Amino acid sequence: MSGHLAVVGLGPGDARYLTPEAAEALAAAEALYGYAPYLDRVPARAAQSRHASDNREERARASAALGHAAQGARVAVVSGGDPGVFAMAAAVCEEIEAGPENWRALDIEIVPGITAMLAVAARIGAPLGHDFCALSLSDNLKPWELIERRLDAAAAAGFVIALYNPVSRARPWQFGAAIERLRRHLLPSTPVVLGRAVGRADERVNVVTLAAADAADTDMATLVIVGSRETRVIARNGRPPLVYTPRAAAEVSA
Amino acid sequence: MSGHLAVVGLGPGDARYLTPEAAEALAAAEALYGYAPYLDRVPARAAQSRHASDNREERARASAALGHAAQGARVAVVSGGDPGVFAMAAAVCEEIEAGPENWRALDIEIVPGITAMLAVAARIGAPLGHDFCALSLSDNLKPWELIERRLDAAAAAGFVIALYNPVSRARPWQFGAAIERLRRHLLPSTPVVLGRAVGRADERVNVVTLAAADAADTDMATLVIVGSRETRVIARNGRPPLVYTPRAAAEVSA
Repeated sequence: MSGHLAVVGLGPGDARYLTPEAAEALAAAEALYGYAPYLDRVPARAAQSRHASDNREERARASAALGHAAQGARVAVVSGGDPGVFAMAAAVCEEIEAGPENWRALDIEIVPGITAMLAVAARIGAPLGHDFCALSLSDNLKPWELIERRLDAAAAAGFVIALYNPVSRARPWQFGAAIERLRRHLLPSTPVVLGRAVGRADERVNVVTLAAADAADTDMATLVIVGSRETRVIARNGRPPLVYTPRAAAEVSA
Repeated sequence: MSGHLAVVGLGPGDARYLTPEAAEALAAAEALYGYAPYLDRVPARAAQSRHASDNREERARASAALGHAAQGARVAVVSGGDPGVFAMAAAVCEEIEAGPENWRALDIEIVPGITAMLAVAARIGAPLGHDFCALSLSDNLKPWELIERRLDAAAAAGFVIALYNPVSRARPWQFGAAIERLRRHLLPSTPVVLGRAVGRADERVNVVTLAAADAADTDMATLVIVGSRETRVIARNGRPPLVYTPRAAAEVSA
């Protein structure tokens, strides 16, 4: 079967983060599928069709793109950040498993990108310099109790925690509830990095404490990094602070 | 103070993963510091000095690069993958915090890159498509008991687990011990992805089960991804399997 489907990570907003591999995959595609704001980032090309969809229609988008590729076309699905982290690659795999047998014969290529937590971390120092986890706060696809259990486990074991999808219009309370939960395990002074729209013109990165972290500081474009007990802040005169987690760690008391 | 220090992520081996931002930062540097095999990946440039060091000399390398930048130079420290993930950015921050006051006045820029777990995941599907953690198995900088505690917490709470630094010549038993530990929590059929030298000519990605995972399958260049209870394998006739973790999860039983 000659069809080809690439799932391409654009990285954070700016083209400075687009890898050569991703740029090639986009240029080679006959058809592009994706959430409209992501498609808008890809330079227009003659004889390349574009199929925009809403950001909640991930499975329908994956299915349409697979069906198109199964006709023998070279198709790319675009994804913000890295397609493998809370993004389109898993949706494509779900559709392949559930779909017609011939979709398994397609040439599937996942093209990695800079995911939001790496971009936010880089802006502020090295908060992910030691063991960390990445957790989506969206309870659309898993029960809130499971999210709480994972927050408990990660904080108690000393992982730095990157929170994806902290809030949305339909999920206004989840970030506040997660912060409350983390306060059971971590000191009020624990550094919290709020990175909004990193790599875009309206980028904003703030460092607050766990005591001061507030849902009003976040939106759908925000990635949050909550430090561990080891995470440190270096004040710098006239420059933004550096937040980092040392490579070495002592035993965490239970 | 005019000195500038960039900590630059090269991504996995191949230049296809080097972002435009990273390429610019390398081109602009007057001096490059790094582990020799990483420096070798950067195209030579006239009037740019190179300072190679061993891979265990991270703090000494960071200190030398900071001292050089503090003389007013434009210096880049190169890092494989992403500099913020078990790499040079944290070492640079540690040295800044411990070093002379004027190092805090330097212009510090961290340039993110594709870290190994993203590259390995992309090669095989979407194993990191749901909540996951990244854990270094090196007990040079933390006690083994803490690593075990983190393995327990992550596996029991349903995180997919990316293992960095699974073994080295000086640490031959850690990967086997970690796998033994994870078998307490996860089914023998749990998929384990072994990604070696992804992005390089000698790349090799294998999928085994937790029951079959063996230290002989890993080396210093291997990144391991251990699935959760939700991680699935899609067999494909004549193509490598796809390994992915669905975006949705049910409650994990305690």
